[in-house]
Amino acid sequence: MPRKASLSGFPEWLPAERVVEQHVLDTLRRTFELHGFAGIETRAVETLGQLLRKGEIDKEVYAVSRLAEDQQGAPSQPDDPKRLALHFDLTVPFARYVVENAGHLAFPFRRHQIQKVWRGERPQEGRAREFTQADIDVVGDGTLSPRYDADVALVMAEALAALPIGQFLIRVNNRKLAEGFYRGIGLEDTAGVLRSIDKLEKIGPEEVARLLREELGATEEQARLALALAEIRTEDASFVDQVRALGVEHELLEQGLSELEDVVSTLHRRAPGRAVADLSIARGLDYYTGTVYETVLVGHEQLGSICSGGRYDALASKGNRVFPGVGLSIGVTRLVMRMLSQQMAVASRAVPTAVYVALTADEDWADAQDVAAALRERGIPAEVAVSAEKFGKQIKYADRRGIPYVWFMGTGGAEAGRAHQVKDIRSGEQVDADPRTWTPDAADLLPQVAPADRE
Amino acid sequence: MPRKASLSGFPEWLPAERVVEQHVLDTLRRTFELHGFAGIETRAVETLGQLLRKGEIDKEVYAVSRLAEDQQGAPSQPDDPKRLALHFDLTVPFARYVVENAGHLAFPFRRHQIQKVWRGERPQEGRAREFTQADIDVVGDGTLSPRYDADVALVMAEALAALPIGQFLIRVNNRKLAEGFYRGIGLEDTAGVLRSIDKLEKIGPEEVARLLREELGATEEQARLALALAEIRTEDASFVDQVRALGVEHELLEQGLSELEDVVSTLHRRAPGRAVADLSIARGLDYYTGTVYETVLVGHEQLGSICSGGRYDALASKGNRVFPGVGLSIGVTRLVMRMLSQQMAVASRAVPTAVYVALTADEDWADAQDVAAALRERGIPAEVAVSAEKFGKQIKYADRRGIPYVWFMGTGGAEAGRAHQVKDIRSGEQVDADPRTWTPDAADLLPQVAPADRE
Repeated sequence: MPRKASLSGFPEWLPAERVVEQHVLDTLRRTFELHGFAGIETRAVETLGQLLRKGEIDKEVYAVSRLAEDQQGAPSQPDDPKRLALHFDLTVPFARYVVENAGHLAFPFRRHQIQKVWRGERPQEGRAREFTQADIDVVGDGTLSPRYDADVALVMAEALAALPIGQFLIRVNNRKLAEGFYRGIGLEDTAGVLRSIDKLEKIGPEEVARLLREELGATEEQARLALALAEIRTEDASFVDQVRALGVEHELLEQGLSELEDVVSTLHRRAPGRAVADLSIARGLDYYTGTVYETVLVGHEQLGSICSGGRYDALASKGNRVFPGVGLSIGVTRLVMRMLSQQMAVASRAVPTAVYVALTADEDWADAQDVAAALRERGIPAEVAVSAEKFGKQIKYADRRGIPYVWFMGTGGAEAGRAHQVKDIRSGEQVDADPRTWTPDAADLLPQVAPADRE
Repeated sequence: MPRKASLSGFPEWLPAERVVEQHVLDTLRRTFELHGFAGIETRAVETLGQLLRKGEIDKEVYAVSRLAEDQQGAPSQPDDPKRLALHFDLTVPFARYVVENAGHLAFPFRRHQIQKVWRGERPQEGRAREFTQADIDVVGDGTLSPRYDADVALVMAEALAALPIGQFLIRVNNRKLAEGFYRGIGLEDTAGVLRSIDKLEKIGPEEVARLLREELGATEEQARLALALAEIRTEDASFVDQVRALGVEHELLEQGLSELEDVVSTLHRRAPGRAVADLSIARGLDYYTGTVYETVLVGHEQLGSICSGGRYDALASKGNRVFPGVGLSIGVTRLVMRMLSQQMAVASRAVPTAVYVALTADEDWADAQDVAAALRERGIPAEVAVSAEKFGKQIKYADRRGIPYVWFMGTGGAEAGRAHQVKDIRSGEQVDADPRTWTPDAADLLPQVAPADRE
């Protein structure tokens, strides 16, 4: 079980836990790179003007100010648009980055970005105030093929499948489909309807129907149809027929049906069992304009989405130049917190060291460093004892840290005297060894992360 | 040349620049791991009480507050010790981490930590407001062998030598040596003398002598001796004789001489030409108690130190339990800014993609994805075109992004029809290829970072 953070909402990991997180980060980065996503980072701070550009704030923002200035009094206005604040996601900063650097980027630009973000919300399980996101986006200059909508979801399916987290399910919907449907049944406040539908899992269909009637003036029949749409969920493109069976017609609905059909068919073919069309997915207040995604960890649905995103017709714009984008973001910290608290995965050890070079005599230190250097040259992490304590004590030290091998110094090689020896302290097996050739089992070279043995 | 940051002091890299930074970060992490340092991260924020614990602030701190609270009025006192602020280094947070988690750590604890830090200082070349540090420290419980002082410097020498940055020089001194010497000549305000000596490179010996006389009440002779000590610089342990020749005696001086002799002898033996004893090194206001280090990039001395650190008798303490530590910190952003501005190293390409799979017909997309998947399975980064534009246009797209190979889809394999082909778009060479076996040159697999060709 992770310990309680000493500052609520700001989790920190012990070394063995960090090995698990690092494994997740390395696996994600590797998968993103195999798919041609270039890694970038953006600064941690943005101006408030930039962060609040979309109008409504639904993320709690942390403002940043130089203490020296605060102490000089005359604090700036709390909502001065030039004031600095920590970014609350990686999409807003990326949009700014694209606009600023458009002249230096080749479009469609595929980028991944793995960084911390901050939100001052009330901490709870699955929700921290400081957390890491891992995003991929493809952004075009003017246009962006709808094929990228399936592409980014496939990359995320591959990335998540490479983690020891068990089953997950990407739920896909399309804003045009939903909005077109609502318009087709005469509900014009489509954002309002989406907000209500977004509460479906939390408050249930009857409550949502009441909201639709009382807050949005929907008739019984309109509420029934909106809820009927939200109930549709299929693994393949058969959702299209189910929607048509509701008898609603609207141009935007047709467009959305066609887009979602393409995405879901591709996902069904290339990543069977990983994705479903789920017409209840709304993505709250986010400003998507087409495909939207959420991802649940099967058996941990109450954790919320671990990987969400969608398409923006205009992720960014510069004058009359528009940059459409589509992407997904993994909530790494949320995922790792769950992996640790449920012991889904464990690290084979907390330290990178594979070999601990023991000292027979204090003056062997230089020779012992030569041994360690010879091992490291061949990629074997090694560290050297600093004093010639009793072997038992040196072995115990290695054991306590999970280091699998202890090296005992020979005297001048096999010919000239006693040979070097290496002991596997788990089995007790001890063999002669040459630091220029001896190699540990591949599984012992670096800490491994594997699904925990849960018998 | 790096572009100007859109927010002064907050540099951001273009994809090809980020490849260089990522190479630096990967190389450092790899070296640290080979030496058995476990990676940890700490949260970005600390309480002001924690950050200002050492009394004097010489780093400009960025305070953090929830915007929603600011807007409710009643701002907290600017220097409320519970107020949150961004960390300005990784040592203070690590000390807190050690105290909080002492029961879960095995000592001596070797950790590396690579993270961003923030300081609100005036931005200038080599000094950003947001920058990445890469730290290693060894921390003991109660005691810590002096051998670790040489150990951590050797790790950093190896790490820096693995980077395409040319020659560097680690300068080592010892606080006890300097303080003992000053006491030995009758100067008791040793911190004051250190502060003055720290200005030697900036203002020259005459100005320093004047400061020592006027601000610290030193006599001509005392000032002469203090400056004579600061002039000593040797590659091996011969500094000891030079110090003794000054005829000063003090117990603390003897201790410092002995400690520094051990460190410098080890460095001279194991990393010849990488380190010198330099008795002018003071490390300003930092609270070191023994060995201190600074590192200059040869030919870029005015950049300031790129790797600094030292030993603390008490990095942290918990009741009467004391944790001594020794470590070094690389200023990654400072180094990378210089590498980029001086074109010391360049990336072979800006994207991870090695192979761009072109489309002959739009409906080939699924087959083309199979080809890309087969390549990725063998670790070859690949991406797929989304539309069957003219080959010339598809090749131009790959070329513009620096992707070395373009793949042309065959029709059903070598037997059944036209074979797959792959073109090296630099040489124009085009060959038949099987996606299950074809492999690019090792140098083309991932972006390479190499010293720039500067003829």
